[in-house]
Amino acid sequence: MDKIDQKIEAAAAPHTPQTTHREPRGHSGTRSRSAFRGKSFSRRDTPTIKNTVRKTEDIIPPIEGDNIRVIPLGGVEEIGRNMTMIEYKNDIIVIDIGFQFKDEDTPGIDYILPNTKYLEDNKHKIRGLFITHGHLDHIGGLPFLIDRIGYPKIYTRQFGAIMIQKRQDEFPHLQPLDIQVIEGDETLSIGELRIKTFPISHTIPDSMGLIIETPHGNIVFIEDVRVDNINGVPTEEEVEQYKRFKDMKVLMLTMDSTSVEKPGFSLSENVVIENLARFITETKSRLFIATFASQVERIIAIIQAAEKCGKKIVVEGRSMKSNIEIIKQLKLADVTNIIPLEDIENYPPDRIVMLVTGAQGEEFAALMRIANKTHKYVRLRPTDTVLLSASVIPTNFKSVNNLKDNLYRSGAKIVTYVDSEIHASGHGNREELKWIHQQIPYKFFMPVHGQHYMLCQHAELSYGLGHNKEDVVVPDNGSIVEIYDNGEKIRILKEKVPANLVLVDGFAVGNIQEMVLRDRKMLAQDGIFLIVVSINTKTGKLKKSPDIIARGFVYVRESQDLLTNTRMIIKKTVEDTTQGMNPIDFDMVKSILADNVARYLFQKTAKKPMVIPVVLGV
Amino acid sequence: MDKIDQKIEAAAAPHTPQTTHREPRGHSGTRSRSAFRGKSFSRRDTPTIKNTVRKTEDIIPPIEGDNIRVIPLGGVEEIGRNMTMIEYKNDIIVIDIGFQFKDEDTPGIDYILPNTKYLEDNKHKIRGLFITHGHLDHIGGLPFLIDRIGYPKIYTRQFGAIMIQKRQDEFPHLQPLDIQVIEGDETLSIGELRIKTFPISHTIPDSMGLIIETPHGNIVFIEDVRVDNINGVPTEEEVEQYKRFKDMKVLMLTMDSTSVEKPGFSLSENVVIENLARFITETKSRLFIATFASQVERIIAIIQAAEKCGKKIVVEGRSMKSNIEIIKQLKLADVTNIIPLEDIENYPPDRIVMLVTGAQGEEFAALMRIANKTHKYVRLRPTDTVLLSASVIPTNFKSVNNLKDNLYRSGAKIVTYVDSEIHASGHGNREELKWIHQQIPYKFFMPVHGQHYMLCQHAELSYGLGHNKEDVVVPDNGSIVEIYDNGEKIRILKEKVPANLVLVDGFAVGNIQEMVLRDRKMLAQDGIFLIVVSINTKTGKLKKSPDIIARGFVYVRESQDLLTNTRMIIKKTVEDTTQGMNPIDFDMVKSILADNVARYLFQKTAKKPMVIPVVLGV
Repeated sequence: MDKIDQKIEAAAAPHTPQTTHREPRGHSGTRSRSAFRGKSFSRRDTPTIKNTVRKTEDIIPPIEGDNIRVIPLGGVEEIGRNMTMIEYKNDIIVIDIGFQFKDEDTPGIDYILPNTKYLEDNKHKIRGLFITHGHLDHIGGLPFLIDRIGYPKIYTRQFGAIMIQKRQDEFPHLQPLDIQVIEGDETLSIGELRIKTFPISHTIPDSMGLIIETPHGNIVFIEDVRVDNINGVPTEEEVEQYKRFKDMKVLMLTMDSTSVEKPGFSLSENVVIENLARFITETKSRLFIATFASQVERIIAIIQAAEKCGKKIVVEGRSMKSNIEIIKQLKLADVTNIIPLEDIENYPPDRIVMLVTGAQGEEFAALMRIANKTHKYVRLRPTDTVLLSASVIPTNFKSVNNLKDNLYRSGAKIVTYVDSEIHASGHGNREELKWIHQQIPYKFFMPVHGQHYMLCQHAELSYGLGHNKEDVVVPDNGSIVEIYDNGEKIRILKEKVPANLVLVDGFAVGNIQEMVLRDRKMLAQDGIFLIVVSINTKTGKLKKSPDIIARGFVYVRESQDLLTNTRMIIKKTVEDTTQGMNPIDFDMVKSILADNVARYLFQKTAKKPMVIPVVLGV
Repeated sequence: MDKIDQKIEAAAAPHTPQTTHREPRGHSGTRSRSAFRGKSFSRRDTPTIKNTVRKTEDIIPPIEGDNIRVIPLGGVEEIGRNMTMIEYKNDIIVIDIGFQFKDEDTPGIDYILPNTKYLEDNKHKIRGLFITHGHLDHIGGLPFLIDRIGYPKIYTRQFGAIMIQKRQDEFPHLQPLDIQVIEGDETLSIGELRIKTFPISHTIPDSMGLIIETPHGNIVFIEDVRVDNINGVPTEEEVEQYKRFKDMKVLMLTMDSTSVEKPGFSLSENVVIENLARFITETKSRLFIATFASQVERIIAIIQAAEKCGKKIVVEGRSMKSNIEIIKQLKLADVTNIIPLEDIENYPPDRIVMLVTGAQGEEFAALMRIANKTHKYVRLRPTDTVLLSASVIPTNFKSVNNLKDNLYRSGAKIVTYVDSEIHASGHGNREELKWIHQQIPYKFFMPVHGQHYMLCQHAELSYGLGHNKEDVVVPDNGSIVEIYDNGEKIRILKEKVPANLVLVDGFAVGNIQEMVLRDRKMLAQDGIFLIVVSINTKTGKLKKSPDIIARGFVYVRESQDLLTNTRMIIKKTVEDTTQGMNPIDFDMVKSILADNVARYLFQKTAKKPMVIPVVLGV
């Protein structure tokens, strides 16, 4: 018993170098990097995330003279977690602080954050945090990161400010935020920099771009953007808006690359709004409209269209209700025609428009509950019409298809963006992006927002307009883009600021979860197979037949033989290994046990569960 | 010790009704349905899959008179695992026997199969298995199911026959197959039925439709199908092909619904082939073409185009090589210009076309290995051109994007179906399907192949052509579609044949894996937390501090407190529970332990790992 007392992970079999154990054919418990990996918790070392990484100043050469650094901390190798910082002399300004949703590579994770290590080490230089608009991929990281970067002052327009504050209220342990609400066309002095804002078109009110004035020229920072257009011709408002750049000395342009792969101009939101208004006016029974709660401008238009033809709006879904509260607060629409769900039966069906969340098939969103008949009050009827006013985010493909299956089972009429023009993107297609490029006479270009290949395609678009390859940079997360030589040249340094994944996993926020994720992925494939063995420390014999616990492995109840034989292998392995051994090397026993069992299970089942032996001496 | 000897799952805490333990806030080990759930393996019951389901004849009313039953066993609630059976009097014929690939709902699973329980119970009636073409969603289930349904004679055209035989060779434990190779235009007498075959257009040679002659008229069975067309006008060959139906008495039509949602006609494969040929002719350096190995007709065209301009073909990827072997064997193309990979450097770059697998970003496919620099020989160069001659299957969206990122990092020129017309689908769009409908004067219609909503849209297409709702049936997997009343009427019976999931998981094939899957999904979210406790059976005290093993849970090394406190909770729970207890009720101890620990962990981490206590009496 002396070898295994009081230790966590008594069960894991560290590879003791003196043993001659064989490698298992596949992965087994002995090979997995676990949270506890071969570590006694009686040792009082409690490394924090910060301690595990060197101070960035040891790695990154200091900024020199009047060079300018632009460092994307997130959003340039993925769609989401947008965050960029600009460093000039002793000042840093930060633009956006978003998060990214989990995907199949991050099971169990809540959100993925930009890595702010460099900012944390340099927070004394941060002069402000600009938020371009209130979408979660631009503000979602704030509650998790604002404390780390020292609560800088936040500059944003009204809608974004309320979105931020509403979210912040859900994190009562944080300090109050210092938010300065600014206009869409304002000039601010921040440290040694002057920053101008300008309004841009997106799908949420109060979206803005930034013009950061530097001695070498202006950096024009455009995040999510589309161009209002009529059949591919930008509207007069757009033309007017971009005239400001006509004779500007623009040092560098950055811009959204999300939809660069899509040809032409995107469908105009105006067309979408007209079509929705027509459905609202003409539908003779209950009409359900599902859209993203983040499509605030569309939601406003829907409320107005219903108002116009005397229909009542019922709102279902938390995020939708929350955004409608903001619309109400800011008086962006007359919301007197919104009625509570309970009153729905007081009106004839042809007076009802239901505005719901769940167009992406989100498991617990309003429309999904309605479609799969788990909604408390609302059931679909064959006379209803349902508009899915949203495109399908590819990672939601399966859930949207399931949603559509369920909707069709109700017999209701289903309309989607595939058959009717009832959705437009907030991200400009290739020709819209090109049009913006043509309005801004820039020297350097840095595409942002999107996967690497999208940034490359956006760079190619810039080459196509006559820009030189050496004036265009395609950054990675953490790339230090530096404008040097009096603003004449641009380069990406070989050094990078830390950019490894920072994950929100329950209450844990950090980057060490990557090891935990590996385990989760393994467990999801083949499960876990635990063996509990009691050994007589004197004789090396088993005290009793081993206990076996399996989860997520094959359905072994059908295969008695598998278990009987596994027990025999365990017994033989232990007794062979301990023969003549005094004292018993428990680590060695565990290691060989894990290997032998893993190999046998793979042979018999073609599965590779994590095999974890717990060996107790009695 | 007496209570816990020799049992598997000594650790799980069954809910003993006499205890007063509280429900955990979330799931914990005590609530999970495990493979071993509260079951001693010393009891020698070994249920097989068959024993768990009643004989279908107890449930399904027997077929009467000259009614005809058409029963889709798979493929009508999903894309994949296509299989349908037709029953008439004492005869059953089966059409296709495909599988479906796993998705996020089936972690660790290899394939999903159609449920053949009804056929297994009625295998004496099976007169033949028809294979419409050699794609895996039509033949993939064969090695797993052919034994169960009693090795019926297989009827298929030449290309499919070879595909089947090649796959079968990988399953040496099976009996030899009885395959009758038939022509594309042949008449067979099978039992009381006469069956005619006819060629149809798809993406693999030797695709065919079936005409099943019944006393009430013909059932025209069309699986995967497209219509060759020039800008939306069907080619003369197609027109000619479908003329056979002009004056036919068609009782029922069934047809592929996969692409019914897509408007218009699909791009013609001829255009794709022309474009690929132009790339092959005009590219002045190495050209990589990635496509599905199943796109056999396209592969043949690529080989021919390369031959024509004197370029050599190098083939990489197992499935591609395998299909090229068949092309060679059937002399479908002159393959003398195919050279082995080792010879690639013997030719100038502008003489090389590499034909590779991996256009869907499959982890170990040729192109992925080339892109992420793990391929043994081939590295991309900035002068290379890569054609992704495939659309993106939505579930592969992320891996394809990662592939594109990696390809762009090489500096090579990347061409996809988004920017160039280098891919066309094998499944007809809405207008193609409509055109086929218009060629066939049918009475009843049953859409197949696709999710439920696709089938509904296909049904709507039929209504739009003037068919009555009562003449169109939208089946589910297992639906018994019956044509009765002398062929006058069609209905779906309220009874269904078994249709629950049958999964291939390593060597296991069955439907009980669903429980295992639930565990895998839980493990993937929050991992597992194991507690090993030794109790002195006399005093109820812990013999030593508990051991804890966690996998896929949070990174607890950072949080000593969590573990210290968890150990305290374990100790207190055990000692409180066992106080005055004689003998100790181990099940009760485990149950309360699991609850208390799960609750504490959730409070502290917001995660809900499976908590499994192992309690040993010493």
